[in-house]
Amino acid sequence: MSLLISYDHPMKIKNGSTLLFIGDSITDTGRARPVGERDGLGDGYVSIVDGLLAAHYPERSIKVLNMGIGGNRIIDLQQRWQEDVISLEPDWLSIKIGINDVWRHYDNPWMDAQVGKDQFRNVYTALIEGTLPFLKGLVLLTPYFIEKNLNDPMRRQMDEYTAVVKELAARFDAYLGDTQAAFDAYLQHGPTQTLCGDRVHPNRKGHTIIASCFLNAVGFEWRKPI
Amino acid sequence: MSLLISYDHPMKIKNGSTLLFIGDSITDTGRARPVGERDGLGDGYVSIVDGLLAAHYPERSIKVLNMGIGGNRIIDLQQRWQEDVISLEPDWLSIKIGINDVWRHYDNPWMDAQVGKDQFRNVYTALIEGTLPFLKGLVLLTPYFIEKNLNDPMRRQMDEYTAVVKELAARFDAYLGDTQAAFDAYLQHGPTQTLCGDRVHPNRKGHTIIASCFLNAVGFEWRKPI
Amino acid sequence: MSLLISYDHPMKIKNGSTLLFIGDSITDTGRARPVGERDGLGDGYVSIVDGLLAAHYPERSIKVLNMGIGGNRIIDLQQRWQEDVISLEPDWLSIKIGINDVWRHYDNPWMDAQVGKDQFRNVYTALIEGTLPFLKGLVLLTPYFIEKNLNDPMRRQMDEYTAVVKELAARFDAYLGDTQAAFDAYLQHGPTQTLCGDRVHPNRKGHTIIASCFLNAVGFEWRKPI
Amino acid sequence: MSLLISYDHPMKIKNGSTLLFIGDSITDTGRARPVGERDGLGDGYVSIVDGLLAAHYPERSIKVLNMGIGGNRIIDLQQRWQEDVISLEPDWLSIKIGINDVWRHYDNPWMDAQVGKDQFRNVYTALIEGTLPFLKGLVLLTPYFIEKNLNDPMRRQMDEYTAVVKELAARFDAYLGDTQAAFDAYLQHGPTQTLCGDRVHPNRKGHTIIASCFLNAVGFEWRKPI
Amino acid sequence: MSLLISYDHPMKIKNGSTLLFIGDSITDTGRARPVGERDGLGDGYVSIVDGLLAAHYPERSIKVLNMGIGGNRIIDLQQRWQEDVISLEPDWLSIKIGINDVWRHYDNPWMDAQVGKDQFRNVYTALIEGTLPFLKGLVLLTPYFIEKNLNDPMRRQMDEYTAVVKELAARFDAYLGDTQAAFDAYLQHGPTQTLCGDRVHPNRKGHTIIASCFLNAVGFEWRKPI
Amino acid sequence: MSLLISYDHPMKIKNGSTLLFIGDSITDTGRARPVGERDGLGDGYVSIVDGLLAAHYPERSIKVLNMGIGGNRIIDLQQRWQEDVISLEPDWLSIKIGINDVWRHYDNPWMDAQVGKDQFRNVYTALIEGTLPFLKGLVLLTPYFIEKNLNDPMRRQMDEYTAVVKELAARFDAYLGDTQAAFDAYLQHGPTQTLCGDRVHPNRKGHTIIASCFLNAVGFEWRKPI
Amino acid sequence: MSLLISYDHPMKIKNGSTLLFIGDSITDTGRARPVGERDGLGDGYVSIVDGLLAAHYPERSIKVLNMGIGGNRIIDLQQRWQEDVISLEPDWLSIKIGINDVWRHYDNPWMDAQVGKDQFRNVYTALIEGTLPFLKGLVLLTPYFIEKNLNDPMRRQMDEYTAVVKELAARFDAYLGDTQAAFDAYLQHGPTQTLCGDRVHPNRKGHTIIASCFLNAVGFEWRKPI
Amino acid sequence: MSLLISYDHPMKIKNGSTLLFIGDSITDTGRARPVGERDGLGDGYVSIVDGLLAAHYPERSIKVLNMGIGGNRIIDLQQRWQEDVISLEPDWLSIKIGINDVWRHYDNPWMDAQVGKDQFRNVYTALIEGTLPFLKGLVLLTPYFIEKNLNDPMRRQMDEYTAVVKELAARFDAYLGDTQAAFDAYLQHGPTQTLCGDRVHPNRKGHTIIASCFLNAVGFEWRKPI
Repeated sequence: MSLLISYDHPMKIKNGSTLLFIGDSITDTGRARPVGERDGLGDGYVSIVDGLLAAHYPERSIKVLNMGIGGNRIIDLQQRWQEDVISLEPDWLSIKIGINDVWRHYDNPWMDAQVGKDQFRNVYTALIEGTLPFLKGLVLLTPYFIEKNLNDPMRRQMDEYTAVVKELAARFDAYLGDTQAAFDAYLQHGPTQTLCGDRVHPNRKGHTIIASCFLNAVGFEWRKPI
Repeated sequence: MSLLISYDHPMKIKNGSTLLFIGDSITDTGRARPVGERDGLGDGYVSIVDGLLAAHYPERSIKVLNMGIGGNRIIDLQQRWQEDVISLEPDWLSIKIGINDVWRHYDNPWMDAQVGKDQFRNVYTALIEGTLPFLKGLVLLTPYFIEKNLNDPMRRQMDEYTAVVKELAARFDAYLGDTQAAFDAYLQHGPTQTLCGDRVHPNRKGHTIIASCFLNAVGFEWRKPI
Repeated sequence: MSLLISYDHPMKIKNGSTLLFIGDSITDTGRARPVGERDGLGDGYVSIVDGLLAAHYPERSIKVLNMGIGGNRIIDLQQRWQEDVISLEPDWLSIKIGINDVWRHYDNPWMDAQVGKDQFRNVYTALIEGTLPFLKGLVLLTPYFIEKNLNDPMRRQMDEYTAVVKELAARFDAYLGDTQAAFDAYLQHGPTQTLCGDRVHPNRKGHTIIASCFLNAVGFEWRKPI
Repeated sequence: MSLLISYDHPMKIKNGSTLLFIGDSITDTGRARPVGERDGLGDGYVSIVDGLLAAHYPERSIKVLNMGIGGNRIIDLQQRWQEDVISLEPDWLSIKIGINDVWRHYDNPWMDAQVGKDQFRNVYTALIEGTLPFLKGLVLLTPYFIEKNLNDPMRRQMDEYTAVVKELAARFDAYLGDTQAAFDAYLQHGPTQTLCGDRVHPNRKGHTIIASCFLNAVGFEWRKPI
Repeated sequence: MSLLISYDHPMKIKNGSTLLFIGDSITDTGRARPVGERDGLGDGYVSIVDGLLAAHYPERSIKVLNMGIGGNRIIDLQQRWQEDVISLEPDWLSIKIGINDVWRHYDNPWMDAQVGKDQFRNVYTALIEGTLPFLKGLVLLTPYFIEKNLNDPMRRQMDEYTAVVKELAARFDAYLGDTQAAFDAYLQHGPTQTLCGDRVHPNRKGHTIIASCFLNAVGFEWRKPI
Repeated sequence: MSLLISYDHPMKIKNGSTLLFIGDSITDTGRARPVGERDGLGDGYVSIVDGLLAAHYPERSIKVLNMGIGGNRIIDLQQRWQEDVISLEPDWLSIKIGINDVWRHYDNPWMDAQVGKDQFRNVYTALIEGTLPFLKGLVLLTPYFIEKNLNDPMRRQMDEYTAVVKELAARFDAYLGDTQAAFDAYLQHGPTQTLCGDRVHPNRKGHTIIASCFLNAVGFEWRKPI
Repeated sequence: MSLLISYDHPMKIKNGSTLLFIGDSITDTGRARPVGERDGLGDGYVSIVDGLLAAHYPERSIKVLNMGIGGNRIIDLQQRWQEDVISLEPDWLSIKIGINDVWRHYDNPWMDAQVGKDQFRNVYTALIEGTLPFLKGLVLLTPYFIEKNLNDPMRRQMDEYTAVVKELAARFDAYLGDTQAAFDAYLQHGPTQTLCGDRVHPNRKGHTIIASCFLNAVGFEWRKPI
Repeated sequence: MSLLISYDHPMKIKNGSTLLFIGDSITDTGRARPVGERDGLGDGYVSIVDGLLAAHYPERSIKVLNMGIGGNRIIDLQQRWQEDVISLEPDWLSIKIGINDVWRHYDNPWMDAQVGKDQFRNVYTALIEGTLPFLKGLVLLTPYFIEKNLNDPMRRQMDEYTAVVKELAARFDAYLGDTQAAFDAYLQHGPTQTLCGDRVHPNRKGHTIIASCFLNAVGFEWRKPI
């Protein structure tokens, strides 16, 4: 066991950091209100990340917060950014947004207030710019649509919003978790139906794929001795 | 993505295997009845293992079954072994039993039918012997007590039953997941109260530690490209 | 109002007929047990058909029964055919089956007992042959997958099972309701997400499309005077 | 399928219209709060209309809203007209009110604040006058009492209120759905008890009759090719 | 108070009698299972009768049983007569049946097994003949339909079944409670809607009318001194 | 039936009167909020009175309101008198209060704010004085304790409060319903346990006794012809 | 703390004894099924006894079982004596029965199968005779009625059954807990209403009085050093 | 029974006193809101104390209040001290606080606002100083950790906070209930698991130990004659 300490892990989130996840229902997954922490992290990728960080980096004592809210789009994050992100003073921030911004064009085309790609980029940019100075690390997780057919209309539009997220990660030098690429890799071996019914809300298998994306982005390494 | 295929992973559970977990409430965790499979794997280490196998080895298409029942001791497994293990014809079997065999001496000392160490070893041995011929792989997970003090009476007795499980793993050349050692490693960095209230039923963090033990035992490697 | 009687409608289901619907969850939709009749027809296409027949052909007094059971495949219908179809002595029978026969290949590829196309055709044929002598009319509704992309694997396989149903309708001179074609027509104007989340279980809009297929098959005409 | 486009349907509600239904419990039927839309349209005639419009006119993309509230009389509509009708800016409006205005004279004759025929006409007129300038189309559905005996006191009084609605439809050149006439036509063939228990709240059959009245009023035609 | 004892009431049910009520939902009204007695008499006329007998004839100590079952027709009483009437050895028996025998012709005309007037008379006669020898008193309560219009089809048919009950009361010299006449008297002053919604299941007011019929039949007198 | 009209009943509550009952849990019995009327009169003596008035005096069309609240003492009535009595403008008022004023001395002797006999009389007097001018009739129902032993401490004290109510009835010339006397009469024939468990909250039998007291006070006569 | 061991307590239930309580609802109080033990002892005197024995005699390790069933009379105990007492092989047995044997005469005087005093004595005697040979100790708790008035009919009859229990305790040399005397002592200082509503089912205060009776009977002494 | 009065008990809480318990979840145990009194004292030591005081000192008529709130630390008591203690004007006050002050260091080490030993002592002191002048008696119950190993980190820290409570009891001459010592005495005979799962929230056995500590502190003596 003493071997644990001699390990020189490259994982970037340091001792005693507070790591906050914000996003939509994929992040929320039934988290506690008003603040999701400890056993109130919900039942999705956030809780899987928390478990793997604790199991493999117990000495780092990282505090995880979940502030996802189901149905949110980038403009909903904007409304609650001050209260739900800034005022909680995280060291690390992970943002996973965009699915609903696209989805509403498809399941509710009658809706007036659709979020176009430009508005998506503009609001997203403003949120990053207002937060980056206070952070030790920023992770952007792309939106996704668990559909192999690149010509599917919703997949095609989602790819455009994903491109915006990648562009912002590059521009602001943030860590990137490309969840769409990870799901595409999985879909080479199994059908979308083994991950979820609606191509959006995954089961535990699918959430583990998202968690792996996040962890790869921050340099997680599987520590054998445990 | 094509990199995935060139990986030469040493993970031992091969394509299309059925992997069955049996045990007590730590395994059960609300799994589906009569058989826990797919999204009915419960909310504990079995489901975390399933997620990590699917996320990191999608090409292997491993089918996971959960047959844990809360409160079980080795003698309860014996009663239902034919129906819940043999008849389901698993390729791989993981057994996690022993906590209740010890616990009953402490929370219900008035109970007549206690399971002593010898009976534990004898029944456990019989179960392995009757099953090994049909298996491609067997994993034994030790029982544990998430208590640092080695002189605590229940820890001390648990260590004896853990020793039995290790002895059986050696004797039958099974893969061993030493969950007690893994929890002890964690306890060097954080108090038992961060993992659970009663030192037996862990939260997601603790279940991830058990899952890691299992995965290390079968040669799991974290596959970065995903 | 007296005009109603002078109408010479070509609708084929005659006065006092009993019309029985059998199928899977799309048919079931929460129908009453043991037999779905009157206000216990569930909340899907069967109940919409019943309402439109009563509203537009009140003088025909048609009795509708719903015997759908969620999750059923052709082999499940076979098990309960005697009790749930034959013994109820319907004049008209509508069969809507096949979605789960295909779906299980995708959401549960680990399952052993998959129903292949040949078995689907064989069992379906046997059921028709054993029932046709007692019927005044038989309607076959095709299975469907509400997905526009004809190269999607599950759509492609569904099209094969749909072809079997069309083939059987032709062979036995049954009325055909091509639900897949009807959904395809709708998808020219609106995305799949406006009809359902998982491309299988539709909302009221989608169920009305299925109901329209059935009604067109039996010669329903919209009677203005009402 | 391409035939669909060549159809020259006379249906009056054009592409992209918002169609709002207001009324009492017959309209409400468990619709979503604060606004009933999409899958929150309740379980009555509004939802049937929505389904038939979507199934037969998918290219028109009509958005349906349900703002019914159980127990409402014309004076209750007046209280909430600004918020529940005007501010939602519908293109088309359907009003179905009057049953409770009459019913309260019979099931609660002790009530002080009864709505007489003149008050019914006056308030109804004011509501139409204040809304008509903003509308592309207005549909008035008459109240009804599903009772064949024209000398029944409640039927007789209901007929007077129905006459008011017909009078207003004529005066304001609105489309009229004469639900009472439609139910009378049905009652030539089946007893009232096959539609409902209390002669007011119909089952699915009865709601389909109301839906048909509405659809006939706006020129709906059943489109076979679907 | 001592005046109570000097009263010479003509009420026919004597000290210590067991009085059993059998019938349909009007009798049942949520009574206890398997036997309705004491505070398990349900919430309808049986419980009102029990209260008035206890309040006005406390010295008689009459034991009341309720064996009504919702939906019952005369043929259902026949099925359970031995167990639910004979074996309970009542001194007095009150039968209230016939509404469902008629109603099914109207709310479920598709039903095969309708009970015609002759079958109603024959089965009813057989039940009385098999029970009368064991009884001290028999009360027949007529069925009813709370509808003033004598030409209403269901009313007209109900009147025929009511005539059968009157005929049987005369033939077997039983006490008669003409509930239809009592409701007709009420309807001279108030609409049916003040008693119930569906003209069959009354509120407390209506149940008190039925209770009064029964009590008048057995010679109940209101005892002032209490 | 026409006999009904020729009856010259002495019952004092005239046509179209509003009759309001106020009191504690004995009056409340689950009545509707905010105002108990029609089918929301609860399940106690108020509802029995309403039923008997409607059944035997249908031509009078009396409107009954129930404003009882469980646990109330005279000082609680005082708090809500303006809103719950005066503002509802009853023609007739029935007050049933006093049980809790006494009971609290026994089941909660530690309570500071006990209501003594003088306070009971003073507040009660003030309430009557402030209301009498607006009323056509006032009924006072005495409190009671269903216990035969006149030396029981709670019975003895209850008798003192009952005496106050009788004194007030005499002083203000109100109609008196002596519920204690009525229960005492019953107790000559049956034990208190046949009416209730705690000697305070009666079953249907006991509530009928209270209802009979009220009805006797206002001159109710049982009308045979119904 | 070491003082504990030097104490020479006269408490009669020795180390490792199994102590079984049987009786009616006073004993049951929501105990676990099929056997009430550990935290399933219910919420009444049994659980209070268990707590005080554990707190004051921790070294004796007494195992307590609760087999009470609500509503039981002596004849119900007889039915289940073999299964619920004999087969559980208790060292000590406590019987608390008789309240319902008396109560049924009062709350259900219509009941045929009343248990008279002689039957009570005979069955009780038979049960003791068949069990005494297997026991190390037997405690009889008297029935009671929490009513001070010795002339109350139910109290008077209860005193007769209590006399039977005392007579049996003397005859068989059993330990006696005179709960009626204990409640009488309390009633010198507080009204029955501070202990319970129906004079039968006590609150925690009343259950502690019963527990004290039992404990005094077996020689319990309050051990200060704890 | 008359012996009761001649007893000269040293118990310090005198006739008619109000005794208020304040604390955390151990005190709360589901007590009534807003004030726990009579049958709303919860299910823990407070209710056991109330029962034993009433059973053994019925003539003292002590009124017990429970104002515990789960999760409270000393700083939470401070927030609500005025409303929940001072304004209720107790004669005797019992404080049981400190477990959560320590526990949060272990189950939520990430928490910022930990309560150190000095803050614990300072706030506790201020609360006593502000209340003592109004009291007739003050009891301090120590916090505890039901763990035998004195080197367990949480036990060690708990012992420091316990020392503070003892120091304050001595300084202010308050009565002391050393719950830790009482549990330690029990642990010489039985494992912690027989009292609770998490070593904090005890079962009935454990709560009786706490109750005994309180009662010993105030001079309780077990009174045999009852």
